[in-house]
Amino acid sequence: MTAKPTPLSGFPELLPAERVVEQQAIDTLRRVFELHGFAGIETRAVEPLDRLQSQGETSKEVYVLRRLQAEDGAGDSGLGLHFDLTVPFARYVLENAGKLEFPFRRYQIQRAWRGERPQEGRFREFTQADIDVVGRDELPFHHDIEVARVMVEAMNRLDFLPPMTLQVNNRKLIEGFYRAIGIAEPLLAMQAVDHLDKMSRDGVKKLLTAIDGISDELADRCLDFATISTENASFVKRVRALGAEHELLDEGLDELGQLMRALQSVASHRVRVVADLAIARGLGYYTGTVFETRVEGLESVGSICSGGRYDTLASDGSTTYPGVGISLGVSRLLIPLISRGVVQPGAKVPSRVLVALVDEESRPGSDEIATALRRRGIATEVAASAQKFGKQIRYAERRGIPFVWFPASGDDGTHQVKDIRSGDQVSADPDSWTPSEEVEE
Amino acid sequence: MTAKPTPLSGFPELLPAERVVEQQAIDTLRRVFELHGFAGIETRAVEPLDRLQSQGETSKEVYVLRRLQAEDGAGDSGLGLHFDLTVPFARYVLENAGKLEFPFRRYQIQRAWRGERPQEGRFREFTQADIDVVGRDELPFHHDIEVARVMVEAMNRLDFLPPMTLQVNNRKLIEGFYRAIGIAEPLLAMQAVDHLDKMSRDGVKKLLTAIDGISDELADRCLDFATISTENASFVKRVRALGAEHELLDEGLDELGQLMRALQSVASHRVRVVADLAIARGLGYYTGTVFETRVEGLESVGSICSGGRYDTLASDGSTTYPGVGISLGVSRLLIPLISRGVVQPGAKVPSRVLVALVDEESRPGSDEIATALRRRGIATEVAASAQKFGKQIRYAERRGIPFVWFPASGDDGTHQVKDIRSGDQVSADPDSWTPSEEVEE
Repeated sequence: MTAKPTPLSGFPELLPAERVVEQQAIDTLRRVFELHGFAGIETRAVEPLDRLQSQGETSKEVYVLRRLQAEDGAGDSGLGLHFDLTVPFARYVLENAGKLEFPFRRYQIQRAWRGERPQEGRFREFTQADIDVVGRDELPFHHDIEVARVMVEAMNRLDFLPPMTLQVNNRKLIEGFYRAIGIAEPLLAMQAVDHLDKMSRDGVKKLLTAIDGISDELADRCLDFATISTENASFVKRVRALGAEHELLDEGLDELGQLMRALQSVASHRVRVVADLAIARGLGYYTGTVFETRVEGLESVGSICSGGRYDTLASDGSTTYPGVGISLGVSRLLIPLISRGVVQPGAKVPSRVLVALVDEESRPGSDEIATALRRRGIATEVAASAQKFGKQIRYAERRGIPFVWFPASGDDGTHQVKDIRSGDQVSADPDSWTPSEEVEE
Repeated sequence: MTAKPTPLSGFPELLPAERVVEQQAIDTLRRVFELHGFAGIETRAVEPLDRLQSQGETSKEVYVLRRLQAEDGAGDSGLGLHFDLTVPFARYVLENAGKLEFPFRRYQIQRAWRGERPQEGRFREFTQADIDVVGRDELPFHHDIEVARVMVEAMNRLDFLPPMTLQVNNRKLIEGFYRAIGIAEPLLAMQAVDHLDKMSRDGVKKLLTAIDGISDELADRCLDFATISTENASFVKRVRALGAEHELLDEGLDELGQLMRALQSVASHRVRVVADLAIARGLGYYTGTVFETRVEGLESVGSICSGGRYDTLASDGSTTYPGVGISLGVSRLLIPLISRGVVQPGAKVPSRVLVALVDEESRPGSDEIATALRRRGIATEVAASAQKFGKQIRYAERRGIPFVWFPASGDDGTHQVKDIRSGDQVSADPDSWTPSEEVEE
């Protein structure tokens, strides 16, 4: 343990002042989720491997657990670390279905792990904040609106972040349109169109025409559709103008129209809401509404908040649990913003007051002052040693503690408090003094 | 995914109402720690194996990570899940020493993992809440007092828990006494005496006399010493009466005496503080103060809050970082109390109000009422469907939501709120109504 340790790529850690920012974001999310009646849960970090692998494409990124003492490989536990919060939540719902009330609203703010190659905004260990509403057998569409409104409200309150755009779409609308114009494999077309955010229209057109049965003209119709993007429900008229007809298309237009109208009252200059018909989400299990979110200046990390409707979140054979959810990538969002200096770190310590120490013998007196301040909710620490007051003030400065309290000494009967940002010093009583408003530094 | 999943032994999970209790405990701990100027950090879940293994005795319980796609064993990452929060914290201090201010106060509330056989209060995945103060090169003794006071204050505020006893001792005191009476291997004697909580005096005496050089008489002197237990500093007199003399003994008596005097003002009927000279903590790295904590009725799970002083928490060869810390086993404490029904679960949902729904068309109106209540911090949900009011009231009852809000309808101009615990119903305005005090149910 003598060599200086170095960071592990993909396993980000924050300094105390940076952690303040993350904690503040998590507290805000939690407060908004609870205001809307979402119950907080945590699941264990591990799932049986067969459950993790049944998810297909991401299974290769799983970290498997082995007990160290079993050197011959017999220590394999059959368990892996979860790579998202949806797989464990689906299992939790099945396991506890008899003890839960449906529709079940839950939030879950927790870490997940993926063994993939780290890059900006992609980590091997990361924190997500998920909300989902799950029904038993059925789940009305208004819950799609609910989860979107809750997450937009939460993002609105993260007011230290750059502006964001929530992009919404509906898989029924996409599939209905593609079927209406005669595309046999809507999923393949969706996956091609999904490249529109990083590829030119011509590039995507080439991908589309490479699919069996998609002519130049069909590809153009797909692209005319997928490039529709409106901040209100006017996309409905524009899709109608393309002249396609299909029952699923009607259903999708109705749902997305309802969603866009309901989101108008929560959209803001901080969180724009856009109906973007190119958004599809790659994963197979979405069946209706889909969400993605881009952050201004952070386009390179992709969507930081995604989700949608899945008609079968979980099933035990006899009962099906449909759900709709949205997941905010806390690490993916905050860590690049902190490391780029876009988001400023918080205070190094929670203390608002440093109680100075006249000499080591008077520590109990300084402790008493601190106790009185803490009793009224003022975070306080006592100086570590009885250095000269100038040094104690610099100790506070280095930590970003705004007030230094000088205890009354024998020949001077009053306590004094110095605001070291302004230099102001006043007499004060530990049972009534309150820190003044924040000063711009 | 069709079979009903079953719990994994050693990986406890809580239902939403149980999680409320854990979350409340964690919030309380965090609030107290921050009031005392402790900064919150989190470390990554993994450490390089060589760092985990350098800790000796617990290394065999480590879970090692392997990437799933590498079937030939080449996927071993060289990483293991941390088994406590001290090893990662020591590494964090070394890695970030240049960016931290010392003495560095930190709290860390996080999970840890051990591959050991599960039993009551011993899990494979568990949450701990640790506080430590770490100095560079030196750390005055008053920080031992500080961490003990902070943790006692935190435990005092966990007022839904059974009474607890913090047992304190000092390794200098033990070693000094043993050396004074002529015991060559104080560590072996300490380990024997450590069995006093589960063995008779005679049983421990047999363990002691089995050690080379410990006579019957010496064993008795050890036991006379180790069975001293006082709720104040009177142990000093009782140790002195045993007639041993040693410099280290004097130092230990002085430190433990200071600690016991300083803890008198925070000890309570909920958290007793006892100088118990049998307490030693097995781990080799403690060098002074040691802490353990027993909970009334939960003696079988052992100490739920332990720690002490270590003169070398970390070292990079040229600089040494002494520390003192104490760690509360959140899972070890709460999960047995919840499963035994000693601690009652909280509410199933955070909602205080259910806004009833007259019909699906009036949902926007019910949503507006909910928005107005939430704006004033009142957690609110809107009924999932427009069933008969009786059914909507039962929906609230099942979830433990105390108030049902009936929106004003066309022919009756006022909103009504029913307290479903008392049956009282009053007119109310969503911009000013406030939930009344909690009613005993």
